[in-house]
Amino acid sequence: MSSTKTKTNDSKGRKKEVKKETGLGLTYKKDENFGEWYSEVVVSGEMIEYYDISGCYILRPWTMAIWEALQVFFDAEIKKMNIKNCYFPLFVTENVLQKEKDHIEGFAPEVAWVTKSGQSELEVPIAIRPTSETVMYPYYSKWIRGHRDLPLKLNQWCNVVRWEFSNPTPFIRSREFLWQEGHTAFATKEEADQEVLDILELYRRIYEEYLAIPVVKGKKSELEKFAGGLYTTSVEAFVPNTGRGVQGATSHCLGQNFAKMFQINFENEKGEKAMAWQNSWAYSTRTIGVMVMVHGDDKGLVLPPKVASVQIVVIPVPYKDADTQAIFDACSETVKSLNEAGFRAEADLRDNYSPGWKYSHWEMKGVPLRIEIGPKDIANKQVRVVRRDNGAKVDIPVVGLVEQVKDILSTIQESLFNAAKEKRDACIKVVRTWDEFLKALNDKKLILAPWCDEEEVEKDVKLKTKGELGAAKTLCTPFDQPELPEGTLCFTSGKPAKKWTYWGRSY
Amino acid sequence: MSSTKTKTNDSKGRKKEVKKETGLGLTYKKDENFGEWYSEVVVSGEMIEYYDISGCYILRPWTMAIWEALQVFFDAEIKKMNIKNCYFPLFVTENVLQKEKDHIEGFAPEVAWVTKSGQSELEVPIAIRPTSETVMYPYYSKWIRGHRDLPLKLNQWCNVVRWEFSNPTPFIRSREFLWQEGHTAFATKEEADQEVLDILELYRRIYEEYLAIPVVKGKKSELEKFAGGLYTTSVEAFVPNTGRGVQGATSHCLGQNFAKMFQINFENEKGEKAMAWQNSWAYSTRTIGVMVMVHGDDKGLVLPPKVASVQIVVIPVPYKDADTQAIFDACSETVKSLNEAGFRAEADLRDNYSPGWKYSHWEMKGVPLRIEIGPKDIANKQVRVVRRDNGAKVDIPVVGLVEQVKDILSTIQESLFNAAKEKRDACIKVVRTWDEFLKALNDKKLILAPWCDEEEVEKDVKLKTKGELGAAKTLCTPFDQPELPEGTLCFTSGKPAKKWTYWGRSY
Repeated sequence: MSSTKTKTNDSKGRKKEVKKETGLGLTYKKDENFGEWYSEVVVSGEMIEYYDISGCYILRPWTMAIWEALQVFFDAEIKKMNIKNCYFPLFVTENVLQKEKDHIEGFAPEVAWVTKSGQSELEVPIAIRPTSETVMYPYYSKWIRGHRDLPLKLNQWCNVVRWEFSNPTPFIRSREFLWQEGHTAFATKEEADQEVLDILELYRRIYEEYLAIPVVKGKKSELEKFAGGLYTTSVEAFVPNTGRGVQGATSHCLGQNFAKMFQINFENEKGEKAMAWQNSWAYSTRTIGVMVMVHGDDKGLVLPPKVASVQIVVIPVPYKDADTQAIFDACSETVKSLNEAGFRAEADLRDNYSPGWKYSHWEMKGVPLRIEIGPKDIANKQVRVVRRDNGAKVDIPVVGLVEQVKDILSTIQESLFNAAKEKRDACIKVVRTWDEFLKALNDKKLILAPWCDEEEVEKDVKLKTKGELGAAKTLCTPFDQPELPEGTLCFTSGKPAKKWTYWGRSY
Repeated sequence: MSSTKTKTNDSKGRKKEVKKETGLGLTYKKDENFGEWYSEVVVSGEMIEYYDISGCYILRPWTMAIWEALQVFFDAEIKKMNIKNCYFPLFVTENVLQKEKDHIEGFAPEVAWVTKSGQSELEVPIAIRPTSETVMYPYYSKWIRGHRDLPLKLNQWCNVVRWEFSNPTPFIRSREFLWQEGHTAFATKEEADQEVLDILELYRRIYEEYLAIPVVKGKKSELEKFAGGLYTTSVEAFVPNTGRGVQGATSHCLGQNFAKMFQINFENEKGEKAMAWQNSWAYSTRTIGVMVMVHGDDKGLVLPPKVASVQIVVIPVPYKDADTQAIFDACSETVKSLNEAGFRAEADLRDNYSPGWKYSHWEMKGVPLRIEIGPKDIANKQVRVVRRDNGAKVDIPVVGLVEQVKDILSTIQESLFNAAKEKRDACIKVVRTWDEFLKALNDKKLILAPWCDEEEVEKDVKLKTKGELGAAKTLCTPFDQPELPEGTLCFTSGKPAKKWTYWGRSY
């Protein structure tokens, strides 16, 4: 960051110091130029730094703290389910990668290949994992022999590489990303089916309880399911500004397709040879991008308290004739008592920035709560508390501050979710005809339509809507189905509708 | 695992059930064929599975739990030091990789190159990080401008790739491994020097307090220091069976070499342009291999209680006429009370294995403590407790079990360290002449010798000792220096000795 600063006026005419190079304040507005706003806010909020290889991004500490908060939650939950962590290699041979035909067809164009080490050509090129089904399952075949070896439930936290060329976007579409991938094998389909839903519920909780983002649980269409799997469930988020759905995380039942290819067989309790039922499931750093898109505003990031690495920033507001030391001491004491109460609080005691500059700085970084302490506050034994999400200000007596902060932080967490849900719900549009569908698509709606559930029909919709913004497709068929009166017809094919399905453009 | 079992006799003539394929019991003995013993024990102990790409290994849950235990300790400690986690890309361009000449010379032969994605050739080949100095420092240059931006202290947990061709060995020398790498920048050399030692102390604690392995803290020779750095400190372990040193973890002061190449400059408090001082430091999954080598025995792994994912295994010992259900219930209750007291305990209630088979199985996996519960134990309100490290058995009343287990586990942790230290110390050989040196090397000793500290002299020793087992080299110059009387001569050059230095072969 630059130490070159100039005085300037912000949008409200307040004097503030601005670092020349970082340029506090965003150039773009969320509602006017969403794409540029997003690129700017992830950089100015110090979450991301662009890297000199296109589609690769540096995840800065502000991001990693959020990733770790989600990881702490999820890792503990899957350990309760007796799922164990492991680590499989980054590399996979061409031979193994290509065992499951549908699967490799889905990933082949994006696979990065290592062909050289030092100055030597490798004898055979080696792929970098785009996902680890084919890396792991030859060993599942080895480890699983009898029914007592089941279930086998493993997870790994790792990086994967998908060398995509279209529209790299920080968090949302990057060539390398971090994720967890769970891979489990069961004796029966019932157990696999149950786990798919148990994991999906954890993904819902990541989005709704931690990131304060409403999601729809549902099932993917045949066209959109995981390559090589039996069926895919997902949690689907929605970004009102772009009218695009986002596949938030997926929990797949692979059925026995991979088990067949990799010969994952076992002797069942009756002594007969049987084939394992498998699942795989993953969520990635994409979650964080969705959070930025949904909650961010024209002042910068807005972080939900449960995942923010700094929940409360305490800023001294000294006046010329006031006792500056007393103010700074009060700030430090406030931080101390908040930290002791289990909050993540920090004071910004830098003497080379004005309070106004600091307000803008921490607003840009999305810290949920700001506490200001000036001479009047000290005299009145109070502090001023300002919410990031709605700007609401309130003076709170120092006595009882901890309790009140606790309440305010949970109110913020709740408000963020409610506001996001309200916006999302306002975008849902029920359509019954092709014309209504096209209009809703044009209006950036999250479209709920009765559908015949035929693959050819979805392909046809994709074809008819393709263009600059990308084609429309199914997002998911929600588990929570509205009533579908007999005789309801598919919005596009006119055939009898089988279900309500969400449609839209997506990331 | 196979469900095909046969009855057989173990070395003590007890009947035991053996799974045909996994073959309980090791084929090789640690003292007779160390290399084969090691490969066998990491597989039979279910830590490692060999992978179909040479030099890559699957880290199974039994390994990952140990890795996570170390990670929980180290991550919390560096967070206390205000070091923050981040994540930089796996990939680095050739251009950037080659900026620091000594550095790239050190790593070039081992770098894996991606040249293709899908069916397309990349415009320029892209390297996979062998370490991240060159990945990160262009951005340090960008982020560091003024003295207030310092110190900058980042760490990442990630995988790195070094495509070595010599002697791949699980954990110890693998083409991909997991590690943390810390990268910090300071305004002054004093701060950098201090951090090098603070981090080295954490590495000592990982080895001595967690893995129960004695290490020597010291400084690397010019020849052995990190390529491109100013000086390297390390903790050095020793494997008595092979007489080889192991560089356990390294904490480097990079000086200003990288800062110069990557232009990591800042304006100091006087307004002058200055150059940052940098450190980098890392420990890897190699730690776990050293643990296996030092503590393992002819029955399998021996895990220190502080890192074992299962510290206590409880095994029912039913007799024909006894109340089997009561025994199983007692096992479950014991596990419950141990877990509630904060231990990691498990019962092995499988009904298709005999107690003897289970004893061998959990000994192979190195669980520190076994509790056996039979009808007599229940009658006497006691359990039988058996230590893995020395086989000692003791009957303990159920009342007060938790307290006693606590004591026994800390005794085991301590005993492991003491036994390892005794063995290591017995291998230390002080030499003063070349002949003594050669004999000690031949005797697989950890050699401490007075040395003139000249690079050419170390090169000469390497040359003169090279052969099938690898050349001798310096391991480190210990911080804890014995007295060096004036007039002491270098063991090999005959010049005045400047210090005592450890020499030997190494991994």
